Amino acid sequence: MSSSALETISQASCMDRAIQLAWQGRYSCDPNPRVGCVLVKDGRIVGEGFHVRAGEPHAEINALRMAGEAARGATAYVTLEPCSHTGRTGPCSLALIEAGVPRVVAAMEDPNPQVSGRGFAMLRDAGVEVAVGLREEAASRLNPGFIRRMREGMPRVTLKMAMSLDGRTAMADGESQWITGPAARRQVQRLRAESSAVLTGVESIIFDDSRLTVRAGQLGLDDAESIARRQPLRVVLDSHLRMPLAAACLSEPGRTLVVTVQAEVSERRRRLEATGAEVVVMPANAEGRVEFSALLRYLATQEACNEVLVETGATLAGALLEADCVDRLELFMAATLLGSEARPLFALPGLATMSQQRRLKIDDIRALGDDWRISARPLKER
Amino acid sequence: MSSSALETISQASCMDRAIQLAWQGRYSCDPNPRVGCVLVKDGRIVGEGFHVRAGEPHAEINALRMAGEAARGATAYVTLEPCSHTGRTGPCSLALIEAGVPRVVAAMEDPNPQVSGRGFAMLRDAGVEVAVGLREEAASRLNPGFIRRMREGMPRVTLKMAMSLDGRTAMADGESQWITGPAARRQVQRLRAESSAVLTGVESIIFDDSRLTVRAGQLGLDDAESIARRQPLRVVLDSHLRMPLAAACLSEPGRTLVVTVQAEVSERRRRLEATGAEVVVMPANAEGRVEFSALLRYLATQEACNEVLVETGATLAGALLEADCVDRLELFMAATLLGSEARPLFALPGLATMSQQRRLKIDDIRALGDDWRISARPLKER
Repeated sequence: MSSSALETISQASCMDRAIQLAWQGRYSCDPNPRVGCVLVKDGRIVGEGFHVRAGEPHAEINALRMAGEAARGATAYVTLEPCSHTGRTGPCSLALIEAGVPRVVAAMEDPNPQVSGRGFAMLRDAGVEVAVGLREEAASRLNPGFIRRMREGMPRVTLKMAMSLDGRTAMADGESQWITGPAARRQVQRLRAESSAVLTGVESIIFDDSRLTVRAGQLGLDDAESIARRQPLRVVLDSHLRMPLAAACLSEPGRTLVVTVQAEVSERRRRLEATGAEVVVMPANAEGRVEFSALLRYLATQEACNEVLVETGATLAGALLEADCVDRLELFMAATLLGSEARPLFALPGLATMSQQRRLKIDDIRALGDDWRISARPLKER
Repeated sequence: MSSSALETISQASCMDRAIQLAWQGRYSCDPNPRVGCVLVKDGRIVGEGFHVRAGEPHAEINALRMAGEAARGATAYVTLEPCSHTGRTGPCSLALIEAGVPRVVAAMEDPNPQVSGRGFAMLRDAGVEVAVGLREEAASRLNPGFIRRMREGMPRVTLKMAMSLDGRTAMADGESQWITGPAARRQVQRLRAESSAVLTGVESIIFDDSRLTVRAGQLGLDDAESIARRQPLRVVLDSHLRMPLAAACLSEPGRTLVVTVQAEVSERRRRLEATGAEVVVMPANAEGRVEFSALLRYLATQEACNEVLVETGATLAGALLEADCVDRLELFMAATLLGSEARPLFALPGLATMSQQRRLKIDDIRALGDDWRISARPLKER
């Protein structure tokens, strides 16, 4: 941007730029929130930054480093309340104070109820003027999973499925490659790259030998190699430990969690663990299968999972939906018909009357090459 | 339009106005084509008209009547080749000649190969300058069914279905009211009002007592009462004459054609005919059911059907698709899930491998209240 354009910049534009910066961390900063920061003095941006990777400096520190001495007297626009705790680079609120920033505009409070407001308090105590709430909605869309984890101890769960126009995911014998085209598959790769964990059922491993990995070559992004270095946690629902020891995903970079309800440490479990898989025992539900909400809580609290992407078939998809454990549906719809013998989208065996239908809110339908992406949310009230 | 704006009007704009006028006959002029005409002199529209209703004057005559003496020296923009045959108002080409119109711009030739070019020849023989092809594609979209009937002796077949996001049309027991909301139902009413015939299977009559009528109150159009006076021909596929004698559609205004493969004039048939239903015998296919292509040819050639709207369930829909008898799909998709026990969109029993999938071209997806309308075409090559 030219300096003349910047001189007329509005507060909202500054925050929009901070939000834009924050999005640059979407594939890399997990499990931390995506945060952007812009330092503005005399109508000019003197520093900007975003949080790139957990363990590396926060957005504010990157912006302050860029600004150097110019930070003194600047207003900081930041998409999230600056932290007050000492991480590897010290609390960001203190760094802003020490850099001589007299005014901080934050889009939203820290969603963690245990610390929210402390960063603002530290700033105000030092005489910094603080304003909160500018572009809050847009900023909250940066981190739906992180916000949910902080507030509720649960991740956001996205169910991704590829289907035909008549709602079928595969032929009766399981054949499904490829329903959707390369543009849709690229989007699926990006969904994986944004996720903390990718969850599936053991059947997908047994029948499709799914790898569940982010493949640099399929992302279609400039920094694909760097993005693919962080592999989402692979989570395999496997109540009865049927996971094949030779499963392809076990030799991929990254961790694989096999989730079972069998508490005893069997020989099978030992052999599975010897492949590098980590076995986690969860409580069983009435049908003897893994209790979803317990697993999701575990993933949020023990594995710091913000975003869980589910890639599975009709049975697990239907069960998750029935258990009200799906926050978002990302359906990739191909312009094709597979017919009534093909596999359904959701097994919902109890659903027999129109009054029991599962209503959704469709947020968006957009073209993706010859396919269409439908973004929807189950409506929780029934 | 003000006269100053009209003075700068381009030829294309004149034809666009004629096309716009032609669309005003969309619900009323069947089985004739939708045609519009604009007369322009010295950069001003001096007359315009469209074909309102079969048996009433053609577009050119309406425009000439409006122009009166001002037609002399005007250019006529007309969406279809003016006719050369003597209808109730004489050939339009002759009327244009007699009115002193020196130049005719037509968007397209008459699609009937037996008469196409004759209107132009009559004009040219009288010294009228003729130009053909302006906005031809837009003009042809006025009359896809009429063009098909004239060229191929077949109607255009539109399959309309209402479905859930997971491709289901009703619960297992047939309950389906209402999957989609009022905006979608209004569109369905308008599709009926645009159609020459509405076709269904006898099961829809037996189980749902479908009326298949255009209801003025549900069209949401100013001239709804007038539109609903023309009821599309009702066509019921009923191979074995199971049509209930008390079917609601039999006491509705308009005609009901019951299509069977049983050639003998049974007592049942006589009683059905006594209700006012017309029984038509068609050849049977290998499964002993009505041969679709024979029926469609009959509807085009004997009943002058341009546009046939099919409203039915999975079995007939699948069979029509399998027989390559569907030109267009209009799917009304509700933001809801009905699950794997619910009724499928298309019964396609022979479809077992991905290589047999029925690919479509999706032309448009648009929001309709809480629902979505998907317009698609089956790709004929397999």
